[in-house]
Amino acid sequence: MDLPVFKDIQLAHSRIQAYVHRTPVLTSSAINSMIGAELFFKCENFQKVGAFKYRGATNAILMLEKEKLKLGVATHSSGNHAAALALAASKQGVPSYIVMPENAPDVKIKAVKSYGAEITFCKPDLKAREGGLRKVIQQTGASFIHPFDNFNVICGQGTAVKELLEDIPVPELILTPVGGGGLFSGTVIAAKAMIKNINVIAAEPENADDAYRSFHSGQLIPSDNPNTIADGLLTSLSELTFTIIKENADNVLTASEEYISMAMRIVWERMKIVIEPSSAVPLAVLLQHKELGRGKRIGIILSGGNVDLDQLPVLFSKNEHRIG
Amino acid sequence: MDLPVFKDIQLAHSRIQAYVHRTPVLTSSAINSMIGAELFFKCENFQKVGAFKYRGATNAILMLEKEKLKLGVATHSSGNHAAALALAASKQGVPSYIVMPENAPDVKIKAVKSYGAEITFCKPDLKAREGGLRKVIQQTGASFIHPFDNFNVICGQGTAVKELLEDIPVPELILTPVGGGGLFSGTVIAAKAMIKNINVIAAEPENADDAYRSFHSGQLIPSDNPNTIADGLLTSLSELTFTIIKENADNVLTASEEYISMAMRIVWERMKIVIEPSSAVPLAVLLQHKELGRGKRIGIILSGGNVDLDQLPVLFSKNEHRIG
Repeated sequence: MDLPVFKDIQLAHSRIQAYVHRTPVLTSSAINSMIGAELFFKCENFQKVGAFKYRGATNAILMLEKEKLKLGVATHSSGNHAAALALAASKQGVPSYIVMPENAPDVKIKAVKSYGAEITFCKPDLKAREGGLRKVIQQTGASFIHPFDNFNVICGQGTAVKELLEDIPVPELILTPVGGGGLFSGTVIAAKAMIKNINVIAAEPENADDAYRSFHSGQLIPSDNPNTIADGLLTSLSELTFTIIKENADNVLTASEEYISMAMRIVWERMKIVIEPSSAVPLAVLLQHKELGRGKRIGIILSGGNVDLDQLPVLFSKNEHRIG
Repeated sequence: MDLPVFKDIQLAHSRIQAYVHRTPVLTSSAINSMIGAELFFKCENFQKVGAFKYRGATNAILMLEKEKLKLGVATHSSGNHAAALALAASKQGVPSYIVMPENAPDVKIKAVKSYGAEITFCKPDLKAREGGLRKVIQQTGASFIHPFDNFNVICGQGTAVKELLEDIPVPELILTPVGGGGLFSGTVIAAKAMIKNINVIAAEPENADDAYRSFHSGQLIPSDNPNTIADGLLTSLSELTFTIIKENADNVLTASEEYISMAMRIVWERMKIVIEPSSAVPLAVLLQHKELGRGKRIGIILSGGNVDLDQLPVLFSKNEHRIG
């Protein structure tokens, strides 16, 4: 198994930096007081397509051979990776093919379409998705870009913490959410190379705790029917990301649904920024494990800001059709 | 009537800048495409207490004589000005007295209390509020700081656009929301002094259109039972703010509730920042009056970000008591 090293992340950064936003780092004295620590939030919710996923997708696309790239890229996903891949492909002028379950929320279908992807719908199970993807690839010759089980995607995701560490005073602790493990893998490789003795911890929902159980048992144990409001973190680790995490992570800790919801609320209320539930898991872990952060300087990756505002019926009416 | 000039706003800026955040200016290519213009958003939702009101409150407090200041400050308000005055007073180590209607939302009472104010409750009508305020002032000797009908408050509010214009390429148009008119008054005075031929337009909810009717009739006409989701803009102009607006504004334009809600949604979704409905009114005006902004460089003050998240029941559960 070919594992990324920091040099790969540095190269990824030079490769993608003309295409991605260097997102700001925000702080909040109110949240610092709550945790008794000094927190630095890397705002990937402000990244293109509203999530760090744009980094990995862009890097993976730029690493394709020219002739192969022309045929386009494909993936099965209904989330941020699909949107990221679609936009990154359109920026390079190549097609993207996204296989989505037929019950995917309208808002996600619209987003992926708006970035110019060609969508193929399939039955909402993994087998149908994989079958649909194989068919698309056979027909088009497009390259499959997996959302996290991909060397170049991991290297792209690692560029977020590289920027963070270039922009803040040296921290003692870094936290990211963990789902499939792409963001965390890139983060732990970059952070450990950049700062000696830094602790890097993966934050996971209690209700989708495959990384927690895998890390602490030493064996890859996928989640069985996970159910959490942090819907970006439902996927389980792959062999690749598990290997990186097993070798590099200092810990994997979980947070309950209540703490995730509370953490998200705190960020919206105190920092006035929109984050999705998955982004709130690291802060939730700090709130729930009270001694973990105390007195430390801490970097957190806010992974994304894509929330379905149709779920906020009081404040928002559905009238986007009125625009234009 | 003593009217502020730009020099007063410059002095206010030197006076308050150690106490206020120099808030960032954000842009969004998606919103630029929608409007067909280049928009620059001054993010006063990131200001202390989550609103531009902290500027005016701080300036008014710093302008009090030392002996008078010791006795504290007072106001009647259940909104952002109350929170701003309370925090600004506590930063100077002096008491603040806030008269609030007994039916004010819990979240606002808690916010004002958390900034150290002493709250007096009264019946929820203007007469009771004014009576309650008189009594508090008689008992304490505190100085009344009106939320907008106050020379020094207006000068403080004008510092936001001063920063904006220092930070962006010269725009052709500036828009702010208008309620009582404090922010707009400070803005129009500063902007007209700083940039020749700039247009400055006040944006108001159709459902609380006293400034619109006053400006276009030339006579001060208060709103009668206004009702809008832009709850920071329910107040009517005073003689002072009307005089400034009449003499300086290029126009007052209104937006419907639907456009306000839509504009707020666009900012949350595309910019990933939390703004309150009042802040969305300038963008709503640009969406509704399609030709107004086309092809222009435009500055907008996002006035605040205080939204009651208890109104978002799907995403947030009420469990803040679990913290700490």
